Amino acid sequence: MSDEIVTLAHGAGGLQTRELIEKVFAKAFAGPRFTSDDAALLGLGTDKIALTTDGFVVSPAFFPGGDIGKLSVCGTVNDLSCMCARPRYLTCSFIIEEGFDMSSLEKIASSMADAAREAGAEIVAGDTKVVGRGQCQGVFITTAGVGTLEGGKTGGAFVREGDAVIVTGDVGRQGCAILIARGGYGIKADIDSDCAPLWNLVKAAIDTGEEIHAVRDATRGGLATVLSEIAEQSGLCVEIDEQAVPVDEKVKGFCGLLGLDPMYMACEGRMVIFAPKNGAEKLLRAVRATKYGAGAEIIGEVTRSLAGRVTVRTALGAKRLLAPPSGELLPRIC
Amino acid sequence: MSDEIVTLAHGAGGLQTRELIEKVFAKAFAGPRFTSDDAALLGLGTDKIALTTDGFVVSPAFFPGGDIGKLSVCGTVNDLSCMCARPRYLTCSFIIEEGFDMSSLEKIASSMADAAREAGAEIVAGDTKVVGRGQCQGVFITTAGVGTLEGGKTGGAFVREGDAVIVTGDVGRQGCAILIARGGYGIKADIDSDCAPLWNLVKAAIDTGEEIHAVRDATRGGLATVLSEIAEQSGLCVEIDEQAVPVDEKVKGFCGLLGLDPMYMACEGRMVIFAPKNGAEKLLRAVRATKYGAGAEIIGEVTRSLAGRVTVRTALGAKRLLAPPSGELLPRIC
Repeated sequence: MSDEIVTLAHGAGGLQTRELIEKVFAKAFAGPRFTSDDAALLGLGTDKIALTTDGFVVSPAFFPGGDIGKLSVCGTVNDLSCMCARPRYLTCSFIIEEGFDMSSLEKIASSMADAAREAGAEIVAGDTKVVGRGQCQGVFITTAGVGTLEGGKTGGAFVREGDAVIVTGDVGRQGCAILIARGGYGIKADIDSDCAPLWNLVKAAIDTGEEIHAVRDATRGGLATVLSEIAEQSGLCVEIDEQAVPVDEKVKGFCGLLGLDPMYMACEGRMVIFAPKNGAEKLLRAVRATKYGAGAEIIGEVTRSLAGRVTVRTALGAKRLLAPPSGELLPRIC
Repeated sequence: MSDEIVTLAHGAGGLQTRELIEKVFAKAFAGPRFTSDDAALLGLGTDKIALTTDGFVVSPAFFPGGDIGKLSVCGTVNDLSCMCARPRYLTCSFIIEEGFDMSSLEKIASSMADAAREAGAEIVAGDTKVVGRGQCQGVFITTAGVGTLEGGKTGGAFVREGDAVIVTGDVGRQGCAILIARGGYGIKADIDSDCAPLWNLVKAAIDTGEEIHAVRDATRGGLATVLSEIAEQSGLCVEIDEQAVPVDEKVKGFCGLLGLDPMYMACEGRMVIFAPKNGAEKLLRAVRATKYGAGAEIIGEVTRSLAGRVTVRTALGAKRLLAPPSGELLPRIC
């Protein structure tokens, strides 16, 4: 676009707003159902849907392995995938700071379109608001998504004693990538975010025909938060073998230097799957055969030993309780 | 809640986030389908849906006649209503500045629940992010909504020569209410926002059985923006009789003092309906019988005189062109 920065006029609802929508968003999200009306009209082929929303404020907006646009689509795609719902239609709402770079906005929109395409979903409606300088930081994106149900009912309450715990790849990458992109630690490390749309991975798991009790994406608060939530929701004990949890050597090194625990570091492309032990190997093979599942591992099991708690068996064979995440952790990681 | 302000910990995804969700949002939005999982699972009874989203950054967050919570629900309810879709399920995503008042957040959530209830819609999923002090202003809310289609297909392209133009009440209130709430003009005026959920009004119009060509809510850029968009989308001329446009005396006075034109001032509870002239009186009666439609008027008609333009017949009988809205107008009005 000829204007090089976003101005308040782009958010006023008049000619400039339409220009921004047409030249940046409608161009990136072109499709037969993308609407310039008040709402998109859609056929689903079923009346059973999953509906979700997620806001993204990650700072900085661009980081190794992704940007806020890719993240905003993957986050909502993955939330639907967690419910075994095929991501179908997405909306996106932008809150942009006056002065934001138009070319960055174009890159963000293009990342969103790519991620949606990969997930087989369509961005069909959007909204744009512009606030004055200093009234937000850069760009915030909220996505919402409609999916259609393809698997059975899953959730923390369906988890049973004897379930295996599968994590679909190495953990902690998103948190590390953001900290590195922020700089200021004097540490250079080559860690990409794991940010990815995971519907195809979940679909491969569903297609094995094996029973699946819960699928949860590890985001804010990392793997530890998911495990704590599931322990609480099921009233059972989640027992993890620390050495089985896949963590990249560079992530280990970076977290070690800063005194961070990879178990609590955000991921944006990792699912945790709870399923009966006897089908777990077949699920693992199916997940490993997908684009983002090569590093999947079985990391533990569900028992009755301590109701509502997570235990971790360390390398030395000791068992410790995993503390439920609390406090600030790392803000604006997603 | 015991904490009196929102802290970064409330946005970190751990215990405090769950506490915030349980004690503020889940309490306000309680219902059988409100989810603490990744997505809400919903049955629609049809596979034809309308999907929309809208972001709200209004400043200040509280104003005469409403607040950002009420606005965020009404905006999405009204966008669905514009497509003749019954608002069914809503999501809401909060971006909150560290230090924001917890009791204000509770008031906002309660306004959202009230507005959703009035519209017959359910809030079923949400998300909360907290950013540092100075990284956003107060609270931003993005809502998305799913509606099920109850009327025929409508839109700017369906508008025809001979259509009457109905506005469902006096215009410009939202813009004035926000300016007054901002203060700084030294003008005291007693003007409430028109902010309201309009599904019942639109449903009453549909239920007349009369043909309806387009329904559009006048928000940012006011009535003038809607008329300009419809003129452009239909390729026809929208001719308005200035004296027929309902404007409250206090709005007239306030706008007169500041040199503002009520035609361009934001509304948040007014629809503009385009429908064949022969059914217009019946539609008008039906709209007037609803809670928010008592002030409805027929304000003009669609002709072939100037393709894609809006003309206004003034009190003195002169005809002038209405300029399409451009530039900044008033930022952060919604």
